[in-house]
Amino acid sequence: MSETEISTLGEFGLIDQLTRDFKVKNKTTVRGVGDDCAVLDYGAMKTLVTTDLLLEGIHFDLTYTPLKHLGYKAVAVNLSDVYAMNGTPRQITVSLGISKRFTVEHINELYSGIYAACEKYGVDLVGGDTSASVTGLLISITCIGEAREEDIVYRSGAHDTDLICVSGDLGAAYMGLQLLERERVAGAGQKDFQPDFAGREYLLERQLKPEPRADVIAELRELGVKPTAMMDVSDGLSSELLHICKESGVGCRVYEDRIPIDYQTAVMAEELNMNLVTAAMNGGEDYELLFTVPLTQHEKVEQMKTARLIGRITKPELGAYMVARDDTELEIRAQGWNAFDNA
Amino acid sequence: MSETEISTLGEFGLIDQLTRDFKVKNKTTVRGVGDDCAVLDYGAMKTLVTTDLLLEGIHFDLTYTPLKHLGYKAVAVNLSDVYAMNGTPRQITVSLGISKRFTVEHINELYSGIYAACEKYGVDLVGGDTSASVTGLLISITCIGEAREEDIVYRSGAHDTDLICVSGDLGAAYMGLQLLERERVAGAGQKDFQPDFAGREYLLERQLKPEPRADVIAELRELGVKPTAMMDVSDGLSSELLHICKESGVGCRVYEDRIPIDYQTAVMAEELNMNLVTAAMNGGEDYELLFTVPLTQHEKVEQMKTARLIGRITKPELGAYMVARDDTELEIRAQGWNAFDNA
Repeated sequence: MSETEISTLGEFGLIDQLTRDFKVKNKTTVRGVGDDCAVLDYGAMKTLVTTDLLLEGIHFDLTYTPLKHLGYKAVAVNLSDVYAMNGTPRQITVSLGISKRFTVEHINELYSGIYAACEKYGVDLVGGDTSASVTGLLISITCIGEAREEDIVYRSGAHDTDLICVSGDLGAAYMGLQLLERERVAGAGQKDFQPDFAGREYLLERQLKPEPRADVIAELRELGVKPTAMMDVSDGLSSELLHICKESGVGCRVYEDRIPIDYQTAVMAEELNMNLVTAAMNGGEDYELLFTVPLTQHEKVEQMKTARLIGRITKPELGAYMVARDDTELEIRAQGWNAFDNA
Repeated sequence: MSETEISTLGEFGLIDQLTRDFKVKNKTTVRGVGDDCAVLDYGAMKTLVTTDLLLEGIHFDLTYTPLKHLGYKAVAVNLSDVYAMNGTPRQITVSLGISKRFTVEHINELYSGIYAACEKYGVDLVGGDTSASVTGLLISITCIGEAREEDIVYRSGAHDTDLICVSGDLGAAYMGLQLLERERVAGAGQKDFQPDFAGREYLLERQLKPEPRADVIAELRELGVKPTAMMDVSDGLSSELLHICKESGVGCRVYEDRIPIDYQTAVMAEELNMNLVTAAMNGGEDYELLFTVPLTQHEKVEQMKTARLIGRITKPELGAYMVARDDTELEIRAQGWNAFDNA
């Protein structure tokens, strides 16, 4: 047996290789692997299913992540995938692996965050599996949602001349992580160390307690706009733009001066001597919605409170580029987070 | 914050405590936590959802578990839960956490087992999440299935005078585990050690490659028998009988001389100087189906090739007892496997 390191394939390469032999066998399977959710046909409404795995030491660090926030975030990132299909999340299952260093109170804390997210978004906890683990905490959540068939938005529906929009702002969650890491290092070994987060609360909130953008979906419905393609920004805008371009068979231009960035993100990038646009394009964990709409919807999306226009879809031969402030074009490359590189 | 060890609550106690505040909010949630599957109402058919988490060092030991078998088993145990609702599994999601010591070839081996199980049972892989882990391998699978509302069988439907049946035979998977452990210890540190499994193949198969009992469900349908209560035997017959008694508000009598036990199981128990009936009642991982049927179905279940009658449901005040060969009654206690005790 030859030996190929998993990191040589990366997550997507590995999944591609592992799943390519699986052929759809059931009429109820409308869409399987390859989008934010699987789409299943159970009667008049389609069932949406998505799952996320969060592992201690890989996805979170409990030295600065409160367990309640972790529980909330673990649910939020799953709901985000259902909204990214233009669906409504309805149920989750929660599986936990728990090592000996965790007490009942710890797990209650974790669940209080899960509970808060379920309450806020009207989602039912309908199952799970709980076990001891040899080391560390792990959380595996599956979310099931619903959508009318005609409402579902895939990654593959973008067309030449469509407009590209993104909700909220980008890069703040990444800067929040940098801030937490800096204070962790600064405080290491000091007993009464007080981390300095003054004026940076927004960055922490974006990293520790992301919200799925149900409000964006609601605003799109109010305006009567159905996106042609949509996905949530979990690995970074660059990576997600390339997914939409690949799945839709198109190119894109996004404009540097249109990328939404919060003031705190900009200040933090300067303080850390990091490139702000790189952070916004590749930071990840924003859980914003990236979507495309037909050019005819231009006036409607210009009015949106929750999202803004950042670029346009082009013919595939034009490639995927960011247009800088000086009008030079920089090729978009996926520099998003890769769990196998970081382990 | 007080400190309660998780082991003082146990898995079920912990889950009870964690989930009791979650109220059902959606009409689509017919049944949430508390049975083999959650039942969701999406149109004419009900959607069944179940999930299982398998962790290295807790649920499996790779020194004697081939990765292909592990993949197969990880799917099988989920499908078993859907059959235990009298449903048909249709889709799975697979999430993996993978430490650095695993190569692509290893994960391919694992997936070849997942693939084999999906092919055999006509199930589609529709999603998942794959990540690095700090240590060891973990597999989290969610299975979605369907059933007509009138076909669904819960744990809570058993009535006084119902007959209790179980498929296949019990205790073999547990004996297979004892055998594998014995050979592992015997071979520790020896370079060319050959484990001795001659004449014990059935025990190994039961431990390493359990089959969900789709055939039992098919036979029940052929006979026109709908169980009043059903669940799969994963933690041991004693534990599952007590679940059905508790959920249905009934008691039971099972007869020692009716407990189905394979010849190899009996030989192995004697060799290891273990109590055979204890192994059969509490061994776990059999993935057989335990079900109850109305007394009027007596003749039909007597004909069954895949299952046999082992006892009867009683009024709750009569308790849950096993009637031994000498007619003494032994109270049934849950001594099934508890992940938090073993960690």
